[in-house]
Amino acid sequence: MSDTIKYVLPENRIPETWYNIVADLPSPPPPVLHPGTGQPIGPNDLAPLFPMALIGQEVSTDPAIEIPGPVREIYRQWRPTALHRARRLERALDTPARIYYKYEGVSPAGSHKPNTAVAQAFYNKEAGITRISTETGAGQWGSALAFAGALFGLEIEVYMVRVSFEQKPYRRSMMESFGARCVPSPSEETAAGRAILAERPDSPGSLGIAISEAVEVAATRDDTNYALGSVLNHVLLHQTVVGQEAMVQFEMADDYPDILIGCTGGGSNFAGLAFPFLGEKLRGGREVRLIAVEPTACPTLTRGKYAYDFGDTAHLTPLVKMHTLGSTFVPPGFHAGGLRYHGMAPLISHAHDLGLLEARAYNQTECFEAGVALARAEGILPAPEANHAVKAAIDEALRCKEEGTARTILFNLCGHGHFDMQAYTDYFAGKLVDQTYDEAELAMALAGLPSVAAG
Amino acid sequence: MSDTIKYVLPENRIPETWYNIVADLPSPPPPVLHPGTGQPIGPNDLAPLFPMALIGQEVSTDPAIEIPGPVREIYRQWRPTALHRARRLERALDTPARIYYKYEGVSPAGSHKPNTAVAQAFYNKEAGITRISTETGAGQWGSALAFAGALFGLEIEVYMVRVSFEQKPYRRSMMESFGARCVPSPSEETAAGRAILAERPDSPGSLGIAISEAVEVAATRDDTNYALGSVLNHVLLHQTVVGQEAMVQFEMADDYPDILIGCTGGGSNFAGLAFPFLGEKLRGGREVRLIAVEPTACPTLTRGKYAYDFGDTAHLTPLVKMHTLGSTFVPPGFHAGGLRYHGMAPLISHAHDLGLLEARAYNQTECFEAGVALARAEGILPAPEANHAVKAAIDEALRCKEEGTARTILFNLCGHGHFDMQAYTDYFAGKLVDQTYDEAELAMALAGLPSVAAG
Repeated sequence: MSDTIKYVLPENRIPETWYNIVADLPSPPPPVLHPGTGQPIGPNDLAPLFPMALIGQEVSTDPAIEIPGPVREIYRQWRPTALHRARRLERALDTPARIYYKYEGVSPAGSHKPNTAVAQAFYNKEAGITRISTETGAGQWGSALAFAGALFGLEIEVYMVRVSFEQKPYRRSMMESFGARCVPSPSEETAAGRAILAERPDSPGSLGIAISEAVEVAATRDDTNYALGSVLNHVLLHQTVVGQEAMVQFEMADDYPDILIGCTGGGSNFAGLAFPFLGEKLRGGREVRLIAVEPTACPTLTRGKYAYDFGDTAHLTPLVKMHTLGSTFVPPGFHAGGLRYHGMAPLISHAHDLGLLEARAYNQTECFEAGVALARAEGILPAPEANHAVKAAIDEALRCKEEGTARTILFNLCGHGHFDMQAYTDYFAGKLVDQTYDEAELAMALAGLPSVAAG
Repeated sequence: MSDTIKYVLPENRIPETWYNIVADLPSPPPPVLHPGTGQPIGPNDLAPLFPMALIGQEVSTDPAIEIPGPVREIYRQWRPTALHRARRLERALDTPARIYYKYEGVSPAGSHKPNTAVAQAFYNKEAGITRISTETGAGQWGSALAFAGALFGLEIEVYMVRVSFEQKPYRRSMMESFGARCVPSPSEETAAGRAILAERPDSPGSLGIAISEAVEVAATRDDTNYALGSVLNHVLLHQTVVGQEAMVQFEMADDYPDILIGCTGGGSNFAGLAFPFLGEKLRGGREVRLIAVEPTACPTLTRGKYAYDFGDTAHLTPLVKMHTLGSTFVPPGFHAGGLRYHGMAPLISHAHDLGLLEARAYNQTECFEAGVALARAEGILPAPEANHAVKAAIDEALRCKEEGTARTILFNLCGHGHFDMQAYTDYFAGKLVDQTYDEAELAMALAGLPSVAAG
C-alpha cells in the first residue's frame, strides 16, 4: 500500500481557540464608519443586530479567542475534517506538484458554513434571542444556519437570492427539513424588497438585496437578530478552525504548502484556510503564496475599488472599507451563487491592500471543466463555488509540470455540489455559458460609492 | 465537554479481509440452480457475467477473504467511516437507549455502495474487462459504480429504473459527471426492455426489469461484464467492512449493540453491518437482535415466499432460493427506489429461515417523519431507504423509554438523501402518500414462481 492519502485528527485535536489575524497584521484594518456621522461606530451601534459576544469578536485584537464548549461539542460531529492528498488528480494531471485539499463538504449542511453558523447560533441563544434572520446565495449558508438553529431551538428565516432559489429548489427543502423558513429575495415582506421589486419586478436578486431584507427584519423586531454567513471579521474568525487543523495535518504529512487557494465570495472559506498560515508567515514563519479566486462575472478583488461602501443594497448597514463593485451592482445569475456579492471581507481586502495575497478571476465554464476533472479523479462533485478553487489548483499544478517544480498546493474544497446538479446538467448539455456584467452598470455602481470613500 | 460522540479509526484500521458469514452459519445456503436443468450451477455458468475472482467469492466458504491492496487504497479516501453516538436524537426522544449509527453517506457516491463497487471494478479490470453494465434503483448503486469505473478506466452503462430516473434526475448528472452512461429502464435498447414496453408502455420499471436489461447486454457482448449492487453473496461480503469497523469502534466506546438495524432492499447494507456481529454470536459470542426493515409496499421478507426464483423479470439469471414476491412483481413507485426489489439476498433469506433475524415493514410517510426527526437532531438528511432504519431505531428507542431499559441500538445510516429532495419536498407539501401493491398482482406473481421452487 502506498503513502497516506488522508490525514485524520482525533476529536481532541479540534482547535480550542479561533485564530484572529488582526493580531498579526502589520497595520490594523480601517475602522467601520457610521453612515450618518462618518465616525467610527461603537458596539452599541451594532447591538440591534448582533449579540455583544460577537460584536466583541468583531473588534477584538486578541490573537486567540476561546471556542465555547457547546460549539466544540457540535463541531465534533464532523470535525476535524480530513486533509486529503489528491494523488489520483496528481496522476491524471501528470504533475510533480503535491496537491492537497481540505474537504469541508462532510459537514451536515455540506460546506464550511456550519463552522460559523453553530457559533453564531450559540451566542444568540446565550443572549436570549429566539429568532435569526439571514440571507443566502446558493443556499449553503442558509442550510448551515437552519441546521444550527435546529440544534439550539432558534427560529430561522432565510432570504434566498431569487435566481438561486429557482436554480436550486432543493436547498429550500433542506432548510425546511431543519425547520427553517425560506423566502425568495427580493420579496414583498420587507420595505427593501418592495422597493427593489417596484423598480425591477424581474430582479434576479443579489446578496446585497437579501442582506437588506434580513437586516431590516432584525432591526425592526426585538426578538430577532441578524446573522451573516461571510464578510465580517467574526465570521472569518470562526472559519480559522479549517486552517488550524490543516497546519497540524501538514505536520503529520511532513510537508508544508507553498500555495494556498480558496474561492472568494465574501471571503470566509478562503480566510478560514489561509489566515492561520498567513499569521505564521507574519510571525516570521514559512513563506506561503495566497491565491483568492473569484468569478469573472463578479470580480470584486480584480476589478472592484478598495473603498468605503455599504454591505447591502438598501444601505441599512454601516460603511466598511473593502474591495467593492458598488452596493447597487447586481451580478448576472451565474451558478456559483455564493460568489455573487458586490463586496469582499474587509480583512481580506486589507490583506490584499498590504500585498499579502493575490487575486484572480475565472469564467464559470472553465471552472465546471475543472470540477468534473476533480470528480473523475477524486470522486467528489464540488459546489460551483469550490470549482473556482479547483481550477486555480489545477492551473498551478500544470504550471509545476511545465516548470518541472514540485510545489505543494493546498486548496479548500469548501462544499459539495449535490444541490447544484442543474448546473452540472446544463454544463453537460452544453447549455452553460460564461456570463458577464454590464460595464456601464458597473461604472455606475462604482460612481455611486458613498463620498466618505475618498478616505 | 461531554463524552465522545464520534468514534474514528485511522486508515490502518480498515479491515484487511472481508468477513464471510457462510463459514459460521449452522447450515450452508441452498445451491444456486440452472433454470434449464434444475441442477446446481458451476463457475462456468456465471463466467459470461462475472470475473472468476468474484465467482470464487460467491461460492467461498472461507471465513476471511483478503481485500486487495488497490481496493483498500481507494477505501482509504473515506474509510473507516465514523461510528456516531446520536446523543441529540436520544435527548430529543428522551430515551434511556444509547443510539449509534454508522454513517456511510460520507463516501464519494453518498452511500455504502462504493464498498462493493470499487471491489467489483477492480476484479473486472484485472480480468481484462473494459465495460460493465448494471442496473440501479434510486441511483446510489449506479453512482457508486460510475465512480469506481472512473477510477479504473472502465466504461459504465447503467439501466436506471424509470420511476427513479424521473424522480431523481440529478442522479443521472452525477453518473455522467463520473463519465458513465445512464439509460431509463425499461428501454428500447434491449430485447428484455422492448418486451416489457410492448406489454406496458408506461411501465415504471423495476429492479427486476433493469437487471434483465443489464444482464442481456453483458451476456451478448464479450467486452462487457455485469455487476450487481446487492443480493449476491460477494456483494454482501464486500459490505462487511462496515460491521467489522463498527465492532472495533464499539470496543473504543466500551459498549456493544443489543439491537442491529438496517433497511433491506437487496440486503447488502443490512448484511454489511450485521453479519460480522452475527458471526461473533454464532461463534459463541454476545447475543444481538437483528432487525431487517423493508417498505410495506415491497414486503419481501414479511409477505414474500422463501422459494427458488429468478433474480430478474426476463428470467435471464439462474434460480436462487430467496424470499421473493415473484420475479414479475412490479412494486408501486414509492420514493425508496433502492428497496423496490422483488427478492432478497439469499444469505439474508437463509438467515431469516434459520431464525437468526427479524423483519418488519413500514410505510413511507412514517419513515420520512423519522428521517426529518433525525435531520433536526443530527443534521443529516437520510436517503429514503435509510429512513426505514431510522424509523425502526426510533421505535426501539421509544420502547426502551416505555420499558425503562437502556438498550444499545446500532443502525446503518447507509446514505444521504441529497438526491432525493423531491421526496422531502413532497413530504413537506403533504403530497407524499403511502402506496400499496395490488394484492391480486402479488398473488399472480407468487403463483408464477418456477416449479423447482417446490424444493
